[in-house]
Amino acid sequence: MTFPPEAGAGGQRRAAVVGLGLIGGSIGLGLRRLGWHVTGRDHDPARATRALQVGAVDAIGADPAAEVTFIATPVGAVAGAARQALAAGPGVVTDVGGVKASVVAAVDDPRFIGGHPMAGSELEGVDGADADLFTGAAWVLTPTPTTAPDAFGLVHGTVSALGADVVAVDPARHDAIVAVVSHVPHLTAAALMGVAAGHAQDQEGLLLRLAAGGFRDMTRISAGPAGIWPDVCNDNAPAITAVLDELVSELERLRTIVAGRRRSDLVAALERARDARLAMPAGGTRRTADVVEVRVPVANRPGVMMEVTVLASELGVNLEAFETVDATEADRGMIILVVAAAAAARFRDALVAKGYHPTVRPVG
Amino acid sequence: MTFPPEAGAGGQRRAAVVGLGLIGGSIGLGLRRLGWHVTGRDHDPARATRALQVGAVDAIGADPAAEVTFIATPVGAVAGAARQALAAGPGVVTDVGGVKASVVAAVDDPRFIGGHPMAGSELEGVDGADADLFTGAAWVLTPTPTTAPDAFGLVHGTVSALGADVVAVDPARHDAIVAVVSHVPHLTAAALMGVAAGHAQDQEGLLLRLAAGGFRDMTRISAGPAGIWPDVCNDNAPAITAVLDELVSELERLRTIVAGRRRSDLVAALERARDARLAMPAGGTRRTADVVEVRVPVANRPGVMMEVTVLASELGVNLEAFETVDATEADRGMIILVVAAAAAARFRDALVAKGYHPTVRPVG
Repeated sequence: MTFPPEAGAGGQRRAAVVGLGLIGGSIGLGLRRLGWHVTGRDHDPARATRALQVGAVDAIGADPAAEVTFIATPVGAVAGAARQALAAGPGVVTDVGGVKASVVAAVDDPRFIGGHPMAGSELEGVDGADADLFTGAAWVLTPTPTTAPDAFGLVHGTVSALGADVVAVDPARHDAIVAVVSHVPHLTAAALMGVAAGHAQDQEGLLLRLAAGGFRDMTRISAGPAGIWPDVCNDNAPAITAVLDELVSELERLRTIVAGRRRSDLVAALERARDARLAMPAGGTRRTADVVEVRVPVANRPGVMMEVTVLASELGVNLEAFETVDATEADRGMIILVVAAAAAARFRDALVAKGYHPTVRPVG
Repeated sequence: MTFPPEAGAGGQRRAAVVGLGLIGGSIGLGLRRLGWHVTGRDHDPARATRALQVGAVDAIGADPAAEVTFIATPVGAVAGAARQALAAGPGVVTDVGGVKASVVAAVDDPRFIGGHPMAGSELEGVDGADADLFTGAAWVLTPTPTTAPDAFGLVHGTVSALGADVVAVDPARHDAIVAVVSHVPHLTAAALMGVAAGHAQDQEGLLLRLAAGGFRDMTRISAGPAGIWPDVCNDNAPAITAVLDELVSELERLRTIVAGRRRSDLVAALERARDARLAMPAGGTRRTADVVEVRVPVANRPGVMMEVTVLASELGVNLEAFETVDATEADRGMIILVVAAAAAARFRDALVAKGYHPTVRPVG
């Protein structure tokens, strides 16, 4: 099968969205702005009706003809909804949940690609939906050795069209990373706020009046709804508890330093954190106008597509576009990746080191 | 002595600033914009020269005729610089350090009032100075039973003129509060960043690319210079270690909940944090146009001024203005406080409960 199956027919492209909250609604708004026909549903009929009212979907219900179906339910409901969508039609299915290994293992289908847009908002529900929510944001896709390359290409193209920068990552590695950059920070914000709330009761409100920008920054995410977290913590408990242990250990190390008035150790710890923070990329990933095509002839064996795309992500090379040529039809195929010209040599060298024979050429 | 000693003479009001970094420079810029003459010095002559170049001071050096001297050095140098300024002239002296009990105890002078503007910036040095840095920010003053009321009134009026909202707090209580809302959050940001930096090395940069807004918010303050922290942690170690213990205990509680997949306990913890965060005042304290005068006849005994101003802060009542009438000259005096009309009844009732006989009247 090639994707998109209907794209060449001149008809309107079709997508489906299951779960019409902030993320599902934003996907619907974004795809409709691109001219797609979007069908959506939600277990809560009132939410589906509201999504229709705000223009996030064209129609309520299922669409067996959808090229791509986005599962935007809570994490605990993704696997069931994904299997249902895969059974209902020939299109590809992806999700937006914050934990990936459990879902990818549970669904295990060449047409399912785990996904996780690294974008959000303190708003809740489809009324907070925004067609520009994903502009410039990283959107993780988690291909596996059994993922169909053209299915990956279709999802890649669709989320890129929504303005996101695709980062391909192994599902387990994604989960380890988000424990560090999302799940544990969220729990830490809640813990800090909890400690402050305990003191605030004794201080008759004075404490929170004196909380300046730093404290506000550090606790802002604790103002978000609790709803998604039981599922996330359930599915990613091993990684989360491991990182919590590291954080507690680091806090206890700092406590010992403070209690012992060990000035130079304190400065060293703070300088290390400062250097790391200053070295962070300014705002997600960046698109560039100056791009080239990297063409990679590949054997049609499992895992090639995953290896190539994950390699790009590990090198910090954005996949501006991704396309496969005959990769599933013949014994050998071609993967075409569009990357920043400045990164092309680095990416090519890494591919050569893995035994590939890439060529780099101007786009077009 | 009454303050300001020179204000009635028609001459230009005079201030001095010791330590010409971000905060000292911002005070200088703000006071000069208000028409004051500002003399400043710094142990680094190059910094003093730069402060003169950017217009933060009129002159470099000491000014024995300064009505008010701001000590804006690192915390460890405040007590010495404050004693020197008190010995050099008859004016009042205040500081801007992040820890108060140790400094207030070390200086122990009726003309010294501990202060702490709750404003800052990731910028460093006088080149980051901004005359508007304090606009709308809380500025803690820490009167003691021996503080001269008119000295308090002069500092109050000066920092209010810089745009800040004065909050009067007992020095030890200030230190306990900032351990919760500033010092431990800062160490936590550094610990989180340290944990992430450790993982980032293994993940070849992928991790930091996937760090979205929440992680950025939570680690932003770790990008600040380490310079002030050894002094702060040294002077406030007992409060900081106590709050670190509470935070670690709360993180371990959350770890147990996550490991045990205890969904309802997790939701309860997150909802508690959420409620507290949503209940935080939106942005520091608020000025209001609708104010009244509360006049409080007081016995000229130690601690009255502190009791009245701290009571206002505890009730969340902003002191829009503060004035003393004859409080140090006669056996009985009067404290005049300007507060929001909406808060006047609450403040009056609390004063009555403490045995005062306040009257409330329109301003002017």
